[in-house]
Amino acid sequence: MASAPKANAVVSQSGGPTGVINASLVGVIEEVKKHPEIKNLYGAIHAVSGIVKENFIDLNKISADVLETVAASPSSALGSSRDKPDAEYCKKILDVFKKRDIRYFFYIGGNDSANTCFIVNKMAQETGLELRAFHVPKTIDNDLLVTDHCPGFGTAAKFVACAVMGDDLDNRALPGIKVDCIMGRNAGFLTAAAALGKQRDDDGPHLIYLPEKTVSMEKFLSDVEAVYKKLGRCVIAVSEGMSDTDGKTWAEKITKTDEHDDHGNVQLSGTGALADYLAMRIKAKLKVKRVRADTFGYLQRSFAGLQSSVDASEARRCGIEAVKLAMTNLNGSVAMKRIGNGKNYAVELFRTELANVAEKTKHLPDEFINKDGNGVTKAFVEYALPLTGGLPKTEYLGNKPKI
Amino acid sequence: MASAPKANAVVSQSGGPTGVINASLVGVIEEVKKHPEIKNLYGAIHAVSGIVKENFIDLNKISADVLETVAASPSSALGSSRDKPDAEYCKKILDVFKKRDIRYFFYIGGNDSANTCFIVNKMAQETGLELRAFHVPKTIDNDLLVTDHCPGFGTAAKFVACAVMGDDLDNRALPGIKVDCIMGRNAGFLTAAAALGKQRDDDGPHLIYLPEKTVSMEKFLSDVEAVYKKLGRCVIAVSEGMSDTDGKTWAEKITKTDEHDDHGNVQLSGTGALADYLAMRIKAKLKVKRVRADTFGYLQRSFAGLQSSVDASEARRCGIEAVKLAMTNLNGSVAMKRIGNGKNYAVELFRTELANVAEKTKHLPDEFINKDGNGVTKAFVEYALPLTGGLPKTEYLGNKPKI
Repeated sequence: MASAPKANAVVSQSGGPTGVINASLVGVIEEVKKHPEIKNLYGAIHAVSGIVKENFIDLNKISADVLETVAASPSSALGSSRDKPDAEYCKKILDVFKKRDIRYFFYIGGNDSANTCFIVNKMAQETGLELRAFHVPKTIDNDLLVTDHCPGFGTAAKFVACAVMGDDLDNRALPGIKVDCIMGRNAGFLTAAAALGKQRDDDGPHLIYLPEKTVSMEKFLSDVEAVYKKLGRCVIAVSEGMSDTDGKTWAEKITKTDEHDDHGNVQLSGTGALADYLAMRIKAKLKVKRVRADTFGYLQRSFAGLQSSVDASEARRCGIEAVKLAMTNLNGSVAMKRIGNGKNYAVELFRTELANVAEKTKHLPDEFINKDGNGVTKAFVEYALPLTGGLPKTEYLGNKPKI
Repeated sequence: MASAPKANAVVSQSGGPTGVINASLVGVIEEVKKHPEIKNLYGAIHAVSGIVKENFIDLNKISADVLETVAASPSSALGSSRDKPDAEYCKKILDVFKKRDIRYFFYIGGNDSANTCFIVNKMAQETGLELRAFHVPKTIDNDLLVTDHCPGFGTAAKFVACAVMGDDLDNRALPGIKVDCIMGRNAGFLTAAAALGKQRDDDGPHLIYLPEKTVSMEKFLSDVEAVYKKLGRCVIAVSEGMSDTDGKTWAEKITKTDEHDDHGNVQLSGTGALADYLAMRIKAKLKVKRVRADTFGYLQRSFAGLQSSVDASEARRCGIEAVKLAMTNLNGSVAMKRIGNGKNYAVELFRTELANVAEKTKHLPDEFINKDGNGVTKAFVEYALPLTGGLPKTEYLGNKPKI
């Protein structure tokens, strides 16, 4: 292994923002300061597009106070991008790296970002440029392979759990049927997190529909009817990726859009269509007057002042670890291994190959989904609850003994 | 003034839940314990409907620990109701009061609840029943008369401000146009609260549309275009009660519904239709690809673990005050007067007549709305910011000097 080169570094943030992606950024910044091998630390504004445009700021100039506020702020403080670099784009990135004497590349993002890291690193090797390329994981969807879980998920899960806890109490106060539509096109982890705040046997969400399990409209409506008949109310968490038995998402079936993001995904977020459609079908079938629908939208990924303390701490450690790894490795992606659970919850970090993470998607495993495909298991709660950093306790008095 | 009767009391919660209506409930419970005049304290489940059905629980039996969790829990721990009692309904209420020896009635709710208090009290007087009827204010809309502001508003305002702060940072990271639809059918206070977290000159929301000021689609679109041309992005806060120049709400114009609540209001909440419609119009007119819409929905009024400390404390004080007032007055509504602002923010409580609050609605005053009718003034921020209990600071690095 060649010793770490004395050169500049660049860090950037890609893809959809999260509540703790800035904690990872600050982890990178603070660890870089400890390594004299790294001269300047450039922050590329708006991810890869900022690199090719040489839209850089000097991250060593940011004061410690400001950095702590950055770490606590939601969204991507360096801006983001949905660009998916092709070979020509990557060549431009390398040209800038050469011009600016950049030999360290830290890229905080999801599986697309891991892939960008992988391609850029491969091209660098092919052209004889010594580059150390490291991917720092982030995603609210929790859909990266290898790692136990992703920074960003715990905070989004806390938001979803707190929202559904409140919504379920609201539904107790004014009973009816409520549909909550949650992000996660392909992976159901975040929708499943709706269950994390359940404290009483009859707490909602009473039904959870995940992208991993298809459901016919008939089954969906009969599930809702059964809960409503039993409890006189029903709270339902549905993923934006909830699919019909033919595998097509309900959102695709009901909305027409000519808009795809640069990765070829249909745009589902930012629209209340799916939740409103499901509410309409429930109302038509069950003749219940009070049926409501909410779509949690962007609040799930960027809400000020609601980080999971565990998630924020882990995100920062992942940023720190990427820089440490870069001192003794040529490339890689940072991953987490759980070494204790429950009260002894803890993780240790390790390096995995970029190719193990790039472009791959993890799904909610079968052992986290109940038999009927409309709820989660205790194993999921044990897995996900520690990541939220703990949830508030609530009380409802309506079921106390009557006098 | 007759001395306070030795009798039972009932407390209940009505209308839409809030984040601190349970703090008011706990205020009533803890103060009642100090007054031996009050024997049993009944909690009526689901408001007036719980009274006529004698669906009561014994609130003296709830432990102090549980009460503190109740006070911190969102939504209405006793359940709620949208029933609007007519004369016959009120007669049934009085029959139960007589039967159960109830001479104290504490009703936590909005202007409809103040009216119920007023009618029940008037009927009691007419039939010679000595009743002490007190209204404890609550509403996220902040639309009650007399009081400086309403318990419930500060917590909802905190939610809306934190949501828009995060959303604005998200919009900086991935620029485009974003529409956020906020509750408040007739009063714009909560939509205006979207501005409370602004920290930088170019922070969103860049435009705010309130029920108090009508706006044509042409003006709306040209406002958005102007901001987008200047900043390359735009975050817009719109009230669900945003209205066309003919005074009709845009929501009414675009949605067909046969559902009205028992007060004759069209049901607007729980649907993404208005925000999605505005996003569609913006996209069609400005040819901007990235236009998104979110409707904050029920999360604004019932979200676990996000109380404003100021709001929670004031809500509790209002509950306490209602009981104190009942010892020396026959009826009334609790109101707040601001006796200091900014760092010296403080309120004192006082009694006002039920008739001053019943069925009346306060609107956002003109001095809180900017000249163009598409934003708020500094005076509004000075008025509303203390009620949130303080908002988190955030940082964005994308506008730092380039190197």
